[in-house]
Order: sequence, then structure tokens, then C-alpha cells
Amino acid sequence: MYAITIPDPGGPEALVWSEVPDPVPGDGEVLVEVAAGAVNRADILQREGHYAPPAGAPAYPGLECSGRVAALGPGVSGWAVGDQVCALLAGGGYAEKVAVPAGQLLPVPEGLELRHAAALPEVTCTVWSNVFMIAHLRPGDTLLVHGGSSGIGTMAIQLAKAVGAKVTVTAGTKEKLERCAELGADVLINYREQDFVEEIREATAGQGADVILDNMGARYLDRNVQALAVNGRLAIIGMQGGVKGELNINTLLRKQAAITATSLRARPLAEKAAIVAAVREHVWPLISSGHVRPVVDREIPMDRAAEAHRVLEESGHIGKVLLVVP
Amino acid sequence: MYAITIPDPGGPEALVWSEVPDPVPGDGEVLVEVAAGAVNRADILQREGHYAPPAGAPAYPGLECSGRVAALGPGVSGWAVGDQVCALLAGGGYAEKVAVPAGQLLPVPEGLELRHAAALPEVTCTVWSNVFMIAHLRPGDTLLVHGGSSGIGTMAIQLAKAVGAKVTVTAGTKEKLERCAELGADVLINYREQDFVEEIREATAGQGADVILDNMGARYLDRNVQALAVNGRLAIIGMQGGVKGELNINTLLRKQAAITATSLRARPLAEKAAIVAAVREHVWPLISSGHVRPVVDREIPMDRAAEAHRVLEESGHIGKVLLVVP
Repeated sequence: MYAITIPDPGGPEALVWSEVPDPVPGDGEVLVEVAAGAVNRADILQREGHYAPPAGAPAYPGLECSGRVAALGPGVSGWAVGDQVCALLAGGGYAEKVAVPAGQLLPVPEGLELRHAAALPEVTCTVWSNVFMIAHLRPGDTLLVHGGSSGIGTMAIQLAKAVGAKVTVTAGTKEKLERCAELGADVLINYREQDFVEEIREATAGQGADVILDNMGARYLDRNVQALAVNGRLAIIGMQGGVKGELNINTLLRKQAAITATSLRARPLAEKAAIVAAVREHVWPLISSGHVRPVVDREIPMDRAAEAHRVLEESGHIGKVLLVVP
Repeated sequence: MYAITIPDPGGPEALVWSEVPDPVPGDGEVLVEVAAGAVNRADILQREGHYAPPAGAPAYPGLECSGRVAALGPGVSGWAVGDQVCALLAGGGYAEKVAVPAGQLLPVPEGLELRHAAALPEVTCTVWSNVFMIAHLRPGDTLLVHGGSSGIGTMAIQLAKAVGAKVTVTAGTKEKLERCAELGADVLINYREQDFVEEIREATAGQGADVILDNMGARYLDRNVQALAVNGRLAIIGMQGGVKGELNINTLLRKQAAITATSLRARPLAEKAAIVAAVREHVWPLISSGHVRPVVDREIPMDRAAEAHRVLEESGHIGKVLLVVP
């Protein structure tokens, strides 16, 4: 098969479409013939040589895909050859085939194109596990989503609105904020022009956000804690603004607040399977009914993955960028 | 009645035993004739003028007491005049009488002297709410308790052992560590001579602590995060080592870990009542059966509260320092 390899880590041009051996599904794994993969920021770190795949994961980048079941490894039940699926991956989604633990497979929701289903696994699992399973967003709560127009952001807006929360978002352009509003966001904050701490306070009568979903890490740490409500929960899922930040423990303590930081990729299989099962139970019906949709920015042939990485690096996209197997 | 007042905030001598008006129990409140109060570090901050009582709280220091019910305010049921009780307070425990919301009362456990029950409310409510309700310590988990010989520490050791956890503690002297061992602590770390991160790693085969109960705040923040296990929970309840610390978000994220910071005093009545009810359900039977005991360092007449504050400031005590109404 062909896959994107990274012979020499570096810029987008480091991604090379090469012939490689076919993967073989192991115990409990399913071989998927990939229709499309999707791009995540972690893929850029991996391309640069800063994010080695966890032990046992495929060497190629790509944390999610959609496709058809091509073969079942030993001990797999519940899936059949030919099934249309999408999957959460520890790697290997930038390829024509990938072997994936059966617990990380999801059926393609009704009414969705097979290729577009590649836009779902990372965003649904990340948002559901953080905003709902960890931070317990409740109806009437206020959620603040940084990067509201990202893949994660567009899904967080829709899921939070679906449970009856108030949604505030930050983004860097008017166009992005308008797209967030179309998806249901109630309060739009242009982080280039406005102070999100002040805007959140104003939008919540001084209360602050009950839950914050943050991709910036260090740069926003202090302001995120300031923006939290009493009993607020800050869920960090990215460090685009750096790793080491100053934490004011007194502010956190006065608010009886919590900070969590998680990633999906490094979790043990059992935890991933539990998240995928929860997503199938709670999120999939909302997609099948059309209340929640994946937001696809564009589709690019997988052998031109470098182009897709440039799109992400320039932050010109809204929603997910897909890589379609040529 | 008499109470400790603070006419001019400052050193221990700022505490003055003065005649003041009797408190009157309001709606849902109980008037307690105090037998003993107990000293907390927050009282020192209040004495220094750094920790104003929350709105509606008595002006005098003192976050817990034991005594007898002297009168019931309107709308109180479940308690009768003469009942022996102890109580979690928002203030006013350094006094002959205090009015307290009924939801913050607990009966004196069987077999315990009335005065010694004053040692229980803050430590049981703080440990239960943080280590069990928030951080969900489970049988087989490893708990790290900083300041193992403090009032909080001595209760945390006993409760964690009672649920089948492994307990590691830090303290500053051999004598304090020996007392922790007598209470059940499995691993003793002298923080003056040993690096607790290394010691925890060694004691847990490199895994780290599942839960850390921390009273140091900023000074230990980075090392606490280093000492956490995967899925670990750091519960901060004090800032004896400062307010602003550097947080390495990448370390937190690699561990899928959580940081919480809480205090009891500022919580709404309903939350305090829920914690008190949980303590009565889960902790009180362990005290009545003798499996868990309050550790009382010494008893000092309440009019000599300054002496008690000096003891805490010198950190020479083990367990709780009580103030007995003269």
C-alpha cells in the first residue's frame, strides 16, 4: 500500500507518499481500507519530529480515518468485512490501509458521506471526553471554547448547544466568528480585539464560564483561571501557546475550581474504547438526526498532505481538513 | 459572652479575650454553647488581617467547635437543646457561644470526649471532600499527604488507610514521621533531607501518587505534578508555600492529570451541608468504632489563644491544638 512517511522530519515537504508494507490486523484489531483521513495539529508536531507515536502505534501520521472494513483479526466480533466505519487511531491514518483496535471503530452515522465521517472521531471523542465526561457540562452552564472555528471548536459548539448550555467562543476573524454563530454560538469574542476575560464576565453577569475548553495552554492559563466561574472546570487539550504557565493558586482556590489536561492518543486501549462507546451512545444519535454535523473545510488528495498541513499552519480553515485516498 | 476579638490585626498578641454581645440564632440556625474550639492556619491569616470572614459569618476567628445545643432558631428540626455536638463554622469558634447553620452540626461520636470533638469538623470535612468526594481515592491507590503530622494530615492518613489505600507522607522531623507511622502511614519522607518526587517514584515502582493532598501551594506545584501518577489528582487546600507557581502543562497532559483547589469556608451553605452529611455517613462510623481518632496535640484555655497560635506558627505540634472555654 501507499502511506505518508516522514523520512526526514521538518516542514510540510517532509511528508512523502511512499510504498510501504500492508499492515496486518493483530488480536482484536480490524483492518480498514481507508477512504479519507483528517488532519490534526498533533500531526504537525509528529512531522516536525516532536511527537513520536506511542509504543505499538503505526509509524505513519494520522489520528482518525473513515473507510471500509477489509479484514478482521483474531477475536473480533460485531464488525463484518465491507462495513462502513470511522476510527480513532493512535497513528497510521495517512495511509491506504490501517489496523485499528476494534474498540476504536464507530459505524458511519446515517446520512453521512463515508469520506466526511473521517472528520468525526477526534473531535467527538475529544469534546465528549473533556467537556462532558471530565468537566460535566450541564444544561444552563456556560461553556467557553477557544478556537471556536477549529474542528474541535465547531463540534464543541454544536454538542454544548444540543445539551442546553450557553456557548461563548473565541476566534481571530469576523468570518470565523460568523461561522461559529451559524453553528449556535451565543457570544462571539475576537481575541485579536477583545479581552476574553472581560467579555465572559459581561456575558455572564460577572459569573464566569463553568467550563473552558482550551487549546492554548500556557499563554491562556492565567486568564482562563480568571475567566472561570465558581466551581469552574478548565479542560486543557492543547499547548499552542506554550507549555509552562504561571498558575495563581489563590484564584483557583477562591473559585473551588479544577484544571485538567488530557490527550486521547496516549490513553490505554480500554480508556479509548470507553470514550468511543460513550460517543456512540450519546453523540451518534445527534449526528444521525442531523442536529450535529461534522464541519469540513476542504478535501485534499492524501498524496498532497503537505498542502493540508500548510492550511492548518496558516489557520485559514474552518472545521476539519480531510485527506482523501487518491 | 466572651470571645476572642482582633481590635488590631497583627501577631499573636492581637488576639484579645473580650466581652461581646451574645449571638442570636437566625432562621435554620442553632446556638451552641462552646466547650472547645480548635486552631486552623486560616485563623492566623485572619489575625494578621489577610482573611476577612465571608459575608454573614461571625466576626471572631474559629472555624470549628464542640459544645452543647443551647437554643434553636426558627425552622430547625433534628436537634434538641442539650445535644452534644460539634460544628463546622464560617467563623466565631473562639467564643463562648456561636450560632451555626443546622446543616453544619454533627453529633459527638460515641466514646469521644466532648472537648476532643472540636478537633474533628475541619479535618474530616476537608479530607473527605478533597480526597474522597473530589479526588476519588480508591482502595489500592497511593495517597501522598504533605504535612502528615498536621491535623489534616493525621486524619488523611487514617481515613486513607481505612479505605485500603497506600499512604505516603512528608514531614520535617523524625518524631513527626514516627507519629505518622503509628497512625498507619506506609512510606515516610523527611522533606528536609529527601526529595519527595524521587521517594514517591521509588515507593510506587515509578508510578507516582494517584492522589496528592497539598497544603503548600506554589512551592510544591511543579514537584507535585511530577510526583503524580497517570490519571493522578492533585488536591490543593493551602498555600503555605505561596500563591503563584509555575505549571508544566505538558507534564499534566502526559499524565491525564487534574489539579483542584478548594476551601471549605467560602462555600455556600448547601455545599457545606452536603459535605457534613457525607462525613456523618462515611467518617462518623469509623470514629465511633475506634478505627479513626482525632489526634489532639494539646489543650489551651481559650483566653490564652495567643499561645495556641504561637504553637502553630512554630510547627511544633502534632495533630490539633484545642482552645478550651475557661
